[in-house]
Amino acid sequence: MRFLHTADWHIGKKLHGYDLWSEQEDAFRQILTLAQQEKVDAIVLAGDIYDRALPNERAVATVNQMLQEINLTAHLPLLAISGNHDSAIRLETGSPWFAATDFYLHTKLSQAFTPIELADTQFFLLPYFEPFAARQYFADDKLRTIAQAMPSIVAAMQKQFKPDKKHVLVAHFFAAGSQQSDSETKVTVGGLDAVPTDSLAAFDYVALGHLHNETALHTERIKYSGSPLKFSVSEAQQQKGVWLVDTEPFHAVFLPLTPLRDVVELTASFAELIDPAYYAQVQRDSYLAINLTDTKVIPNVMQELRKIYPNILNLTRKNGREATAAPTIQVQVRSPLVLLDDFFQETTEQKLTQQQQKWAATALKDAQKEGE
Amino acid sequence: MRFLHTADWHIGKKLHGYDLWSEQEDAFRQILTLAQQEKVDAIVLAGDIYDRALPNERAVATVNQMLQEINLTAHLPLLAISGNHDSAIRLETGSPWFAATDFYLHTKLSQAFTPIELADTQFFLLPYFEPFAARQYFADDKLRTIAQAMPSIVAAMQKQFKPDKKHVLVAHFFAAGSQQSDSETKVTVGGLDAVPTDSLAAFDYVALGHLHNETALHTERIKYSGSPLKFSVSEAQQQKGVWLVDTEPFHAVFLPLTPLRDVVELTASFAELIDPAYYAQVQRDSYLAINLTDTKVIPNVMQELRKIYPNILNLTRKNGREATAAPTIQVQVRSPLVLLDDFFQETTEQKLTQQQQKWAATALKDAQKEGE
Repeated sequence: MRFLHTADWHIGKKLHGYDLWSEQEDAFRQILTLAQQEKVDAIVLAGDIYDRALPNERAVATVNQMLQEINLTAHLPLLAISGNHDSAIRLETGSPWFAATDFYLHTKLSQAFTPIELADTQFFLLPYFEPFAARQYFADDKLRTIAQAMPSIVAAMQKQFKPDKKHVLVAHFFAAGSQQSDSETKVTVGGLDAVPTDSLAAFDYVALGHLHNETALHTERIKYSGSPLKFSVSEAQQQKGVWLVDTEPFHAVFLPLTPLRDVVELTASFAELIDPAYYAQVQRDSYLAINLTDTKVIPNVMQELRKIYPNILNLTRKNGREATAAPTIQVQVRSPLVLLDDFFQETTEQKLTQQQQKWAATALKDAQKEGE
Repeated sequence: MRFLHTADWHIGKKLHGYDLWSEQEDAFRQILTLAQQEKVDAIVLAGDIYDRALPNERAVATVNQMLQEINLTAHLPLLAISGNHDSAIRLETGSPWFAATDFYLHTKLSQAFTPIELADTQFFLLPYFEPFAARQYFADDKLRTIAQAMPSIVAAMQKQFKPDKKHVLVAHFFAAGSQQSDSETKVTVGGLDAVPTDSLAAFDYVALGHLHNETALHTERIKYSGSPLKFSVSEAQQQKGVWLVDTEPFHAVFLPLTPLRDVVELTASFAELIDPAYYAQVQRDSYLAINLTDTKVIPNVMQELRKIYPNILNLTRKNGREATAAPTIQVQVRSPLVLLDDFFQETTEQKLTQQQQKWAATALKDAQKEGE
């Protein structure tokens, strides 16, 4: 059995106000092409298909088209679950009809215990669930977190294990470290408590969704695919892609995706940024987080930079206010002129000159007059 | 070919703030039972499945369950279109998979020209469409209304007619009168211009949705099924139901549905309404529009009546303000006392007595004092 593991498509997501329709369409096309080139037997989609429970019509039309292309046009089996960003109820629409063409979309906890058998493998599709659903399903009031519910869930799945088959879990939650590592298991991400990876040891492979970074876990057989696109500046350094998994012999290889427009951090001065020699080296239509090294005020800086770089996400100063740890409690007792001097120092790493101080004092006096 | 024609389910609709989940579930169950008892070959659902473009999760779960029961559990072919209340894009979800089990759900104008052939009949499923879609489809900028688009649409359908088959149109629009009747064709309902019924003469039967009253048209072969439930007080006198249609020989019979809770208008005095001898005759949990014949003020009237009648939609006075045609322009120049006298007359059909006038004058004087 060979399958492709992807997750966290977040169709409809915006990046700092920019629509990502063409980027998401392009990433989808790469995934489908890879699946066909690598002759996979199925695509696994581990939740957060939509970015929100109530997607807009364009997102609905986009997802409908993508799932149709995979399953009805390319005739690829598709194994999918709902994530915490999806509305399980809305996503469920149509799913009882999908199984006829080997498209399995599980949105309810109760569906997780009926394995989908394809070739040599039993797939257990565990959608994102709230702890109350586990309490109800197992009639066990002690299951207060997803981590607490997992032993019961894995045990129930193991009862369905056929010994001559491989066993793959598809799930959407925060998995971390081992049960022994207090520092990791107590962390929560996105409101989900961490499931210790050693509680998932029964499976030949665990295809996870939820974290957007494929390197989030350092385990051979429990993996996040990560998102197909960078969805924030903090992901600028990540390589996005999908896992290509073979069950026999077990082998997992990460196949990178090339973004239509990348998310890039640039640190440079204004003079550099507007220098053709500099920007010839830069993919100018990338989504840019620009870190300006200048100390002086630059009039209309954003407007000027956008003439060259159309997709600027944000603009920060290398020595911006974020960098300082000055205790804000003192602000109240300082005079406006002292505050201005502090601000100038924080921003430019220079003190106000005597001339600048004079200008500032005059300006503050005028401002006060107008205030009165 | 025998089919059942229904429409305008409006799942998720509220009646004066009351949820109708159990009424809609009950009506659905009656429709499904009738379809099975009458051994129909298909159910036709002519649009407005949902009440709104963005239905809530409970409405989505309800519709999903109903469609599944018809098509996957009862194995009945289902021929459905989107109405003006549905979001065509959202409703489309899953539809490419549905056809495998004879569930045809058309949401785009372009789909209307591929007939669905079941037994001796070609069904043309024409979803609700905006005139711009017809302009685009026919590349004809003159098609400014649905009525203007229909001749082109019918002509395109006729090209697909097999002469040895019956031809049924399923559509969702406002149809009325004949082309000759100016008074009717100029009327619009729900923002849709009227399609003249004689433009639909090519079909053996036209199964319409949009108007909630099955008697809206007086044509033998062009019919509204009406909604399965009364959705407003103005529909209190209507008999709701579905059409049972045979194509050969042609026969259409209206099968009534019995509402779980009816919508009823009551005209009575407060004394009558609270008299056990009176309300023993009334289905007390009906949705009631009560027309009170009393002329006197009754303290806490709604609260008192709700003890007996839990589902009151509204309470009006037989001689309420709605009944009067007094020119409101004169209001400004009348004194408060004269206005009060007018109001009292309108409401009670009696003039204020001298004593009442004195009380009113004193009360108005006090009110004016407080105002100052």
